[in-house]
Amino acid sequence: MLVAHTVRSCCTGSMTQDLEAPASQARPAAQPRITVGAYLATRLVQLGAPHLFGLPGDFNLSLLDEMLAIDGVEWVGCTNELNAAYAADGYARIRRGIGAVVTTFGVGELSAINGVAGSFAEDVPVVQITGMPSTAAQSAGALLHHTLADGAFDHFVRAYEQVTAASVVVRTATAPADIDRILLTALNESKPVYLGIPADVAVSLVSAANLRSPLEPFGSNARQLQRFTEALRQAVFTAPSAAVLVGPRVHRRQLEPVIRSLAEAPGVYIATQSGSKAILDESHPASVGTYLGAHTRTEAARRAIDEAPLLILAGTIMSDLLTGFFTHRFNPDDAVELAVTWARVGETTFFGIQLEDSLRVLNDVLQDARLDPLASIDPGRPLVAPGGAGTTPLDHEAFWPAVQGFLSPNTVLVAEAGTAFFGAIDLTLPDNSDLLGQPVWSSIGYTLPATLGVCIAEPSKRAVLIIGDGSAQLTVQELATILHRGLTPVILLLNNGGYTIERAIQSPSAVYQDVTPWNYTALPAAFGAADRAVTLTVRTRDELAEALAMASSTTDKAVLIEVMLPALDSPRLLTALGEGLSSANAPVGAGATTLAPA
Amino acid sequence: MLVAHTVRSCCTGSMTQDLEAPASQARPAAQPRITVGAYLATRLVQLGAPHLFGLPGDFNLSLLDEMLAIDGVEWVGCTNELNAAYAADGYARIRRGIGAVVTTFGVGELSAINGVAGSFAEDVPVVQITGMPSTAAQSAGALLHHTLADGAFDHFVRAYEQVTAASVVVRTATAPADIDRILLTALNESKPVYLGIPADVAVSLVSAANLRSPLEPFGSNARQLQRFTEALRQAVFTAPSAAVLVGPRVHRRQLEPVIRSLAEAPGVYIATQSGSKAILDESHPASVGTYLGAHTRTEAARRAIDEAPLLILAGTIMSDLLTGFFTHRFNPDDAVELAVTWARVGETTFFGIQLEDSLRVLNDVLQDARLDPLASIDPGRPLVAPGGAGTTPLDHEAFWPAVQGFLSPNTVLVAEAGTAFFGAIDLTLPDNSDLLGQPVWSSIGYTLPATLGVCIAEPSKRAVLIIGDGSAQLTVQELATILHRGLTPVILLLNNGGYTIERAIQSPSAVYQDVTPWNYTALPAAFGAADRAVTLTVRTRDELAEALAMASSTTDKAVLIEVMLPALDSPRLLTALGEGLSSANAPVGAGATTLAPA
Repeated sequence: MLVAHTVRSCCTGSMTQDLEAPASQARPAAQPRITVGAYLATRLVQLGAPHLFGLPGDFNLSLLDEMLAIDGVEWVGCTNELNAAYAADGYARIRRGIGAVVTTFGVGELSAINGVAGSFAEDVPVVQITGMPSTAAQSAGALLHHTLADGAFDHFVRAYEQVTAASVVVRTATAPADIDRILLTALNESKPVYLGIPADVAVSLVSAANLRSPLEPFGSNARQLQRFTEALRQAVFTAPSAAVLVGPRVHRRQLEPVIRSLAEAPGVYIATQSGSKAILDESHPASVGTYLGAHTRTEAARRAIDEAPLLILAGTIMSDLLTGFFTHRFNPDDAVELAVTWARVGETTFFGIQLEDSLRVLNDVLQDARLDPLASIDPGRPLVAPGGAGTTPLDHEAFWPAVQGFLSPNTVLVAEAGTAFFGAIDLTLPDNSDLLGQPVWSSIGYTLPATLGVCIAEPSKRAVLIIGDGSAQLTVQELATILHRGLTPVILLLNNGGYTIERAIQSPSAVYQDVTPWNYTALPAAFGAADRAVTLTVRTRDELAEALAMASSTTDKAVLIEVMLPALDSPRLLTALGEGLSSANAPVGAGATTLAPA
Repeated sequence: MLVAHTVRSCCTGSMTQDLEAPASQARPAAQPRITVGAYLATRLVQLGAPHLFGLPGDFNLSLLDEMLAIDGVEWVGCTNELNAAYAADGYARIRRGIGAVVTTFGVGELSAINGVAGSFAEDVPVVQITGMPSTAAQSAGALLHHTLADGAFDHFVRAYEQVTAASVVVRTATAPADIDRILLTALNESKPVYLGIPADVAVSLVSAANLRSPLEPFGSNARQLQRFTEALRQAVFTAPSAAVLVGPRVHRRQLEPVIRSLAEAPGVYIATQSGSKAILDESHPASVGTYLGAHTRTEAARRAIDEAPLLILAGTIMSDLLTGFFTHRFNPDDAVELAVTWARVGETTFFGIQLEDSLRVLNDVLQDARLDPLASIDPGRPLVAPGGAGTTPLDHEAFWPAVQGFLSPNTVLVAEAGTAFFGAIDLTLPDNSDLLGQPVWSSIGYTLPATLGVCIAEPSKRAVLIIGDGSAQLTVQELATILHRGLTPVILLLNNGGYTIERAIQSPSAVYQDVTPWNYTALPAAFGAADRAVTLTVRTRDELAEALAMASSTTDKAVLIEVMLPALDSPRLLTALGEGLSSANAPVGAGATTLAPA
């Protein structure tokens, strides 16, 4: 008989076995019960997501009390809900699983929705958990605060329907199934989901029986997998060589080992999209680096994909920035495509196939095919520092090679949309490292709170964040959370006096391109954490080199380096892509005004 | 003939008359044309909302270029889009009209949506303007950045449908009508609205003809108004006295003069809801102060409303915090109710009546009725400082009387949800002052960016912001914008180590109630604006008195005073209401866990 004070943790980890009664024993008179909040928290711990990112609010206090009582659950209080959603997203990416955000009704959840939309765009299985007013208040149509004062309580879940794969307002009678179904959708589809939990439901008791079985995504349909295998073999059979373009969805499923194995098969080139840049160590002979359509760094690398006799798109997203602004010359329809829940060969799509299975089949088929070996292709030599004195003021041409030299293995490089991400794409990442960015959603400011999530998710790696000044201003307060939690990322803040990415597109001198000039290195002290960070500003090549050396040797504190750069300077790729972005946005006869003749 | 370089401003202000050709003249061969972006900006200037709050993004750059070319338009770049929406809301409240937010598609607009929802809940006519990808890209279902990578472009306008009174994606062919119709909805209903403008539409030329007529809300239906008048006369005829409870919607319509006139009618008491606290100068003999149900400051004031022989609800919202947590003892069904677009006497509702007309009718009827004069009622004497030494550490009991003494006429007092707003309700505001808060939506952090909007909207009044430390952290970066624009509010930051409002409700010691300890007075310098603000921290009564005296005499800079207060201390009203909030949230058997018998 379990004693009362441990009942809330009865279904986590090691205790779970105690509940699996041997078949020969009589079934207990009644099953163990658990509150809905505790049930949800237990599932999150089981799924490897024990950290809850969020803020309290009166409608989620009871829910939080229930969740935080479960062993292993840890609260990560954030400074606002958008930042909490960004942090959960960064966490989920690195953990390759669920990330959980907990907010209050209305004011909290709506603040977070942009983060959850980004998770949808980029296939990150975040669960947005909203503590709601009680069922009774909702039924009564009470005019509560945090509502639109119209007696309706469905406005916000309806808004969330636009950016999630599934949503539910949990009812006590169906709570275990509601929760499990929603979490499974997140896992199966690698998309965010929504759980609304009324305050009374949060503390209601439900059966704990489901918790004895872990939640696992569905398996592939065996017959479909077989048909796909046969179709793939036929396609490979006639191909002299193959190329695989690996996209971000492969990263979500943690399938790097399969890619590494694929890379050993002769006759196969492996390229990555920018959002999944380091999935294969870039030093590998089969790697042709990051593919960006016409903007791919070397012509040979571009042709390896554009002219591949057989091209396999694995977990790719064919969006503008990932395709070098649609400058790919291959026809996706002719490719083999492996998606999260289906696989396609030519015109035939086979549904009900998990990416891990289609990728495994691809690996088997390519290994068996024993294609003729291919010459290694240079994807672009690592960046080399330009010539010139060390006292030269910094620019992008000098900055990125310095970063290249600074990066060491086991790093998570986080690069903000804009100059940072475009510059980072041209880096050759060290082994066992990740580039985390948001090339599909591209919400500036995302990366600073995402770095919080990254540091918590993977303490054994060092996070290096590169972010522009304009972007940092949107979400700056999460730096306080990072520092007060004793996390030690390296932050390279590119100060170029404003939204350089926007200047590169249009109207560089417009008033809206400027941001107010902050004293960025004074922020740790203003956040009450001066002792948690080393800060400095660098203007010349020598100063940057010195700062980076210091950052390498300073591992017990965060390091914030403000890097002064010219306002209109940008890395190679942004200059090239900026032209693409401008022309995409420029309407016919932009800005022309005409007068009708008098 | 107008010359080309002035065409963009041809339809603002004084130039408009030039376009109204006298009837006797031949109609010009063709009407003047203007870009859609310039048309929209012209309307905003006409409506007294020339300031645009927002952030740039590649999908709104062309729109911004068009809008900013119109004379009088001023860009107010904010640090993130939620803050921009909050700022536009504060601006709109003080201006009693439209407030405009301009964001980019997806990442910008979704970041702002919580602010717009608050505008809906509190009847503030904000227009959310989203710069969208081009019509061609949308039709093609292009997988652009800032989308969910699913080829659909309607997700975000659909999310906004939940929190706006009207929304449209503007098409060139119908642009003037689209824009005018949406703006009119905002004016008529006093609710936020949404305008999505594709990049090509923003620069397309349309007819400027509509701009010659100003946009004006609909007028009341004359027959309905007459029927209402008769019904009202009958109700008043039999009443010995009357009381009017004035709500926030009266403030939105700028109807204080009518209330002041009403207050002169004999036999009429005037009370306000907290969200419209100072609509009538609280020194007026007819004022019975702020009505809060059972928590009204004096019993006599409460009874003046609860027991009024004839009660008129004017522009009220019967939500939880505004009714003292539903502790009102009057029956709203028996009252006369004047709403934004209708009026009700008993069971009969008369639609199509503007609040300004029903209120004017009420005034006329009550003046004519010549009711017997009533004795003045004490709504609660101004707060008095407690006894004790000036070296006593501060608490709420000492803080609020000091604020009372500090406030001078022509002040906009902005009070954040939580301890600040509850304390402010018990203040007696000086004449010609406003209390701005968010008692319906109650999104913490709102007031700091709202103060930006307030200062811009009404430079002739001084803004005094009272905000808790926990709340300030959500939106702190807008302080940088305030300071760099040379605005000079007084900011009283209540440092009590966390979310005291939540502690008051439940689980005061829970981990989620804490916020990280910042060095708040170091923020102006960190934001690069040390020269724009005076900062200090006060701990005792004497220190506070000195600081407030300094704030009164320092008008060329902002003043930031950090006020140290005990963590679990709260103002009178919060203590009382906290019990109400707790019991509303506490489910039956909260936290109980039981084991089934073995």
